[in-house]
Amino acid sequence: MAEYEDTYEKVMELARRRGFVWPSSEIYGSVAGFIDYGPLGAMLKRRIENIWRNFYVVQEGYYEIECPTVGIEPIYVASGHVGGFSDKMFQCPHCQEFLRADHVAEAFGIPHAGTMSKEELHDVLLDKECPACNKVLGDVEVFDFNLMFTTSIGPGGQRKGYLRPETAQGMFVDFPRLLRFYRDHLPFGAVQIGKSYRNEISPRQGMIRLREFTQAEAEIFVHPEEKDHPQFFRYADYSMPLCGIAQQEKDEPAVVRTMRQAVDEGIIANEYVAYYVAMTHDILTTVGFNPEKIRFRQHMPDERAHYATDCWDAEAFSDRFGWVEIVGIADRTNYDLKAHAAVSGQKNTVFVQYPEPKKVHHKAIVPNYGKMGPVFRGKAKAVAEAMASAEPTEEGIRVTVDGEEILVAPEMYTVKDEMVDVFGEDVMPHVIEPSYGIDRICYMVLEHAYSEDVADGETRTVMRFKNGVAPVQVAVLPLMARDGMDEIARKLVLDLQAEGLQTEYDDAGAIGRRYRRQDEVGTPFCITVDYDTKEDGTVTLRDRDSMQQIRGKMEDVVAKIPLLLKGKLTFENAL
Amino acid sequence: MAEYEDTYEKVMELARRRGFVWPSSEIYGSVAGFIDYGPLGAMLKRRIENIWRNFYVVQEGYYEIECPTVGIEPIYVASGHVGGFSDKMFQCPHCQEFLRADHVAEAFGIPHAGTMSKEELHDVLLDKECPACNKVLGDVEVFDFNLMFTTSIGPGGQRKGYLRPETAQGMFVDFPRLLRFYRDHLPFGAVQIGKSYRNEISPRQGMIRLREFTQAEAEIFVHPEEKDHPQFFRYADYSMPLCGIAQQEKDEPAVVRTMRQAVDEGIIANEYVAYYVAMTHDILTTVGFNPEKIRFRQHMPDERAHYATDCWDAEAFSDRFGWVEIVGIADRTNYDLKAHAAVSGQKNTVFVQYPEPKKVHHKAIVPNYGKMGPVFRGKAKAVAEAMASAEPTEEGIRVTVDGEEILVAPEMYTVKDEMVDVFGEDVMPHVIEPSYGIDRICYMVLEHAYSEDVADGETRTVMRFKNGVAPVQVAVLPLMARDGMDEIARKLVLDLQAEGLQTEYDDAGAIGRRYRRQDEVGTPFCITVDYDTKEDGTVTLRDRDSMQQIRGKMEDVVAKIPLLLKGKLTFENAL
Repeated sequence: MAEYEDTYEKVMELARRRGFVWPSSEIYGSVAGFIDYGPLGAMLKRRIENIWRNFYVVQEGYYEIECPTVGIEPIYVASGHVGGFSDKMFQCPHCQEFLRADHVAEAFGIPHAGTMSKEELHDVLLDKECPACNKVLGDVEVFDFNLMFTTSIGPGGQRKGYLRPETAQGMFVDFPRLLRFYRDHLPFGAVQIGKSYRNEISPRQGMIRLREFTQAEAEIFVHPEEKDHPQFFRYADYSMPLCGIAQQEKDEPAVVRTMRQAVDEGIIANEYVAYYVAMTHDILTTVGFNPEKIRFRQHMPDERAHYATDCWDAEAFSDRFGWVEIVGIADRTNYDLKAHAAVSGQKNTVFVQYPEPKKVHHKAIVPNYGKMGPVFRGKAKAVAEAMASAEPTEEGIRVTVDGEEILVAPEMYTVKDEMVDVFGEDVMPHVIEPSYGIDRICYMVLEHAYSEDVADGETRTVMRFKNGVAPVQVAVLPLMARDGMDEIARKLVLDLQAEGLQTEYDDAGAIGRRYRRQDEVGTPFCITVDYDTKEDGTVTLRDRDSMQQIRGKMEDVVAKIPLLLKGKLTFENAL
Repeated sequence: MAEYEDTYEKVMELARRRGFVWPSSEIYGSVAGFIDYGPLGAMLKRRIENIWRNFYVVQEGYYEIECPTVGIEPIYVASGHVGGFSDKMFQCPHCQEFLRADHVAEAFGIPHAGTMSKEELHDVLLDKECPACNKVLGDVEVFDFNLMFTTSIGPGGQRKGYLRPETAQGMFVDFPRLLRFYRDHLPFGAVQIGKSYRNEISPRQGMIRLREFTQAEAEIFVHPEEKDHPQFFRYADYSMPLCGIAQQEKDEPAVVRTMRQAVDEGIIANEYVAYYVAMTHDILTTVGFNPEKIRFRQHMPDERAHYATDCWDAEAFSDRFGWVEIVGIADRTNYDLKAHAAVSGQKNTVFVQYPEPKKVHHKAIVPNYGKMGPVFRGKAKAVAEAMASAEPTEEGIRVTVDGEEILVAPEMYTVKDEMVDVFGEDVMPHVIEPSYGIDRICYMVLEHAYSEDVADGETRTVMRFKNGVAPVQVAVLPLMARDGMDEIARKLVLDLQAEGLQTEYDDAGAIGRRYRRQDEVGTPFCITVDYDTKEDGTVTLRDRDSMQQIRGKMEDVVAKIPLLLKGKLTFENAL
């Protein structure tokens, strides 16, 4: 066996060889930041996405929408991406390599390089060597490089287009339509799973930093003063370790809390954020993250966006990359809806009825036309209208009509203090946003599933996938590819496929080698057809992890596999 | 009710209002050729895609892969898209509008405008009026407009990128990896469902012509001489009307044939094409196309690509657009693999073993070093090597060594005629490609499902979706939103969601109006919770199409709905 530097290399070698993931367009030399999901990888990814949907779409009832990946400029002006979505970059004057200024500075041990200005970065780089050619950089120009891919829509460069840097904006832009769909009631949510794009300067971290990647994002629109999740009971008692701001400041270990406690103690800002923190933990362990390699870390006040009131990252541990951000869960307040309202002119508010009408004082200004008429003549009506919304003072009411400032004397009107009914108010919702990086999740599932043990005196590589994400669900192996065993096996494959099970047939090589092949791609169950099958219709069912084998009637095995996969049966009691 | 011009307008009004489909980025004025799938539309689309997967991935065993939408230039040089994927266009000199030259010429009744050269189009347009401003066009420049969206990858415009115009190229580029995944055996297939892009000049046909759209494509790699589908039995007796070349030439109606007959009579070129023609019919009717509005039309020889040996379009009838191409099924021979082999240098062949080794004559040239040595000295070995693959003539063997042409006299070697074993040969597979336009399928499902009937003396709009694609599967309606009925109903919603069912809760307005709301989005079943529910735990189950109602225990209804949805129970016998 070849020697590998770390788990990452082992996992990626297996991923390429067995058809999980490989670099895109290899026959043309590839380009960094783009990967292909091969047959097993795409299946794994889709199963992960569907588990995510089961939580967010079926359970939460937040419908998925699908917006284009190509968007027009005003969307990204409003979102701030045109103005601010950039990295600081320079080009080495010697070797012409483009480099990220903060990354190079960091590599030289400069603290806080990530928050430095262009000028500061320029100054610290002066005497540093280029990491590509080792010559002293000298006076380089540090500039902003916008990370959005651009294109042009229609002939003649009619309209500028951007490849979306996140799926979230689709939900914000569609807010008015979504609000009508949910019949003008808060709270509601919408989700999107799809491709997003960031034109990274020089991505070098495999599936962790891609130029084209898949996000799963939920935008939950809530009343700003009602941040209690209506189904909070689901996760109120869910307990997990939390690295809050206080723990990080004091460099203390995470505290274990239930979500109820975390909210009550003010560790997490509100029930909505806590609910999705817990649900994220639930999702990550369901798809197969090692629970000991997950942590939830709260953003420090100087780290989180200025408009966010709380933000938590789910991080997962990778042997090579250390703690990697996988999911972000933020209370973004009304930042996004406000930004789109400002650029589009849409109100982006919800009329929220009060439980019962509120009586409020209302100062009604009643003009005395008898006195105003002679003074203002043709303008009297316009002046009276302007007065309605003005504030009376002791001197009178000051209004502006046709650009002329006019003081209406107190004797020209009376002020009545009335009580009026107000039925509700326009509210701009706040947004709770859980945002998942699907490719990172796929990578972590691969790394956390990777294991080696010993079988028959040899190292056995096993992908210990959870049943719910294993790409191949069952393999059918005739002991020999002859004497009718192959025919029985092929018929069995058709029966299993008819049950909707992803089934593989393999008759090549020794049976032990074929088990190893299935172990390596994480197939939970193998069925072996042998000479006895022809006699009595029984087959052997083998469990991937324990390598245990049990025997039973073929039709029972077909019936029981879906239950085994769903965990509704244990292997020992299956037949 | 508003008056609508045709079914298209009715369907699209409903689609926008109820959250199926709407124009993208409406709050910024939208741009032609981009749509958003709203909550119900995205659900419908996903269900259609999953049915497609059930056929191609589970049943056929062709794994799905996922390649990026951004591709580098050599891919599209090889595929021919850089050179030839363009429309002929001109700009009106008066109003500056960009227009498709062939479309304008066609509108003026010019025959064969679609196949005219730029010069011919220029000439016929000279005296025509611009359809936008009505001025005579005169001398306009007709030019090629490439329909690929372009972008640039990395900083400093390092690499040109294209948004893929089809998903197919991913499977061709990945052929070497896929071949290894399938352990070097033909036939095998791979599929992809994903976004593709065409920068249309002026798209004006809603969901039928989009700039960003979803394709589902399968590429099946077969031995060029083995085009019998191994599971042909599945569709051999499937019978359907076919508009073959002969029928079209003679302007005769379609002939009804089984797939077996169609292949035997030479109407369809081979079993593979016939199999996917039938499977496509199966898929389209499964997702809800009206069988009377589907036809299969063979491409005429002058219509199909020069390299294809057979090509069939599945077309569906739309009230507004007439017969629309929905799916193409082609035998593309080895065109694509050959093109990528030429540009990339990859062999793109499969070593196919013969059933038993073939004995073939082999001329072995045995050099006589004793005679060659003195003549060629240091070059003798190189000359002998060059001779091995050369052809002996009467004068001797002519070879080139280090650029020098050398004639080796006949006495310097002997030629032995041997019989050798050849175990197999390198074969470049042929490709069978079924290619589906998912957005067009979604639109046709909407149009074919749309129906109006009369209920309670009023027009009732019903989307008669097949159960398998209906976005909402069941709705729970408490008769009143009080007296505990709402609580029972909400609890029932949770139970149904736990079964994985897409469930809606609605307590607003009269029960009749709520049924209408569900009918309009095609929800197959409604459950009504009423006063009796509190007494005896029974609810009413209502069928969308027949409006029949039956009554039963709540837990029975929950258990039976999945079976009803799968068609394993009839409504009459459900409870």
